[in-house]
Amino acid sequence: MSERPIDALDKAKGKKVFIKLKNTEEVTGTLKALDLHLNLWLEEAEIQGKEDKKKFNILLIRGDNILYASPV
Amino acid sequence: MSERPIDALDKAKGKKVFIKLKNTEEVTGTLKALDLHLNLWLEEAEIQGKEDKKKFNILLIRGDNILYASPV
Amino acid sequence: MSERPIDALDKAKGKKVFIKLKNTEEVTGTLKALDLHLNLWLEEAEIQGKEDKKKFNILLIRGDNILYASPV
Amino acid sequence: MSERPIDALDKAKGKKVFIKLKNTEEVTGTLKALDLHLNLWLEEAEIQGKEDKKKFNILLIRGDNILYASPV
Amino acid sequence: MSERPIDALDKAKGKKVFIKLKNTEEVTGTLKALDLHLNLWLEEAEIQGKEDKKKFNILLIRGDNILYASPV
Amino acid sequence: MSERPIDALDKAKGKKVFIKLKNTEEVTGTLKALDLHLNLWLEEAEIQGKEDKKKFNILLIRGDNILYASPV
Amino acid sequence: MSERPIDALDKAKGKKVFIKLKNTEEVTGTLKALDLHLNLWLEEAEIQGKEDKKKFNILLIRGDNILYASPV
Repeated sequence: MSERPIDALDKAKGKKVFIKLKNTEEVTGTLKALDLHLNLWLEEAEIQGKEDKKKFNILLIRGDNILYASPV
Repeated sequence: MSERPIDALDKAKGKKVFIKLKNTEEVTGTLKALDLHLNLWLEEAEIQGKEDKKKFNILLIRGDNILYASPV
Repeated sequence: MSERPIDALDKAKGKKVFIKLKNTEEVTGTLKALDLHLNLWLEEAEIQGKEDKKKFNILLIRGDNILYASPV
Repeated sequence: MSERPIDALDKAKGKKVFIKLKNTEEVTGTLKALDLHLNLWLEEAEIQGKEDKKKFNILLIRGDNILYASPV
Repeated sequence: MSERPIDALDKAKGKKVFIKLKNTEEVTGTLKALDLHLNLWLEEAEIQGKEDKKKFNILLIRGDNILYASPV
Repeated sequence: MSERPIDALDKAKGKKVFIKLKNTEEVTGTLKALDLHLNLWLEEAEIQGKEDKKKFNILLIRGDNILYASPV
Repeated sequence: MSERPIDALDKAKGKKVFIKLKNTEEVTGTLKALDLHLNLWLEEAEIQGKEDKKKFNILLIRGDNILYASPV
């Protein structure tokens, strides 16, 4: 069966991913789960904003905020 | 069965969560209920705006305003 | 059965609610009816804009304008 | 049966309504028909823009432009 | 049967209509066809922009750009 | 059967069309295929931006970017 | 059977494509998979931003960010 675009990320479950948000912030973390809207559950996540860096043990990103994602 | 991204928050029911809104405001509160749109029912919630802090015993956030969420 | 986020407001029918709009305006009024989109029917409503206050006996707010809502 | 938010306007059919648009323009007119998207058919409508007032015998407003509506 | 908002325009098929776009441009033309999204097929259409006027024998406007419409 | 708005473009398959994007860029090309979202497949396309002109042998425009379209 | 707009890209699987994002960034890469929302899985991708160029072995672009796409 032909692959779906989301499989590019699905293969990265349990591994580190890089996420670029539409608001230009950048997120890294270990991918725990994802769905077709690109809602993402990350663990040990870091969000690099314009001025500061935030860390979260568990992070849920609402998919509509995502510009692109990439396994690291 | 594999987990869904929203389970990251679902596990935090009855516990404190941190919510980042698209408008950059930050909300904390105890998570009472959530749905697939990420509509959230919080209790003992605080919203930190640019200039002031607001407190609500009961707060319903419309899910489309949410950037990300994290159990505290 | 587990509760839905919208039940936070549904319980406030007939009572006063506070609504924050995405455009930063604030609305108070007595909640008469609501639906899953968060379309709201308020009575004896007041809208506090940046410069003026408007009063309406009956007010229908289109749900997609809402940031959050809270029973007062 | 419990009422829906849109019934707040539905009761105003044949009567004058006030509409606030997301772009801040204000519209008044006699409500002829409405649907669940809040698409509105008004008659003898006036639109008050920032600089001028426009009049229309028949006016169809696309619902997604509406902030709130109220029977006058 | 009760009328729908879109019937306000549907009655104007074959006649001249005035369209206001969300981007503030104004369009006039003869209405040939419309659908529930307010996609419009106009003929002999003129678009009045901020600086210039464009003419089209046949014009298809994507409905989500429309603010309001009125039979002339 | 009554015509749909999209038929205004459908008749132009194999012919040259003019497309205005919401971002104000203008596109011309030969229409190869279209769907109900107004996704467009153009051939020998030119995009006139504010500063430069780009040419593409094959171009797929995502429909939600389109303001209006017209057979040339 | 008549072709769909997305077939313009589907034919380019395994080949290099050029993607223009709504935020004006430009992406090139080898197309591995796509779906009807225009979610794209690219390999050996480069993103040219206003100031810097980023490279990704595997890249998933969320379809709603795309302005247009073209096989190179």
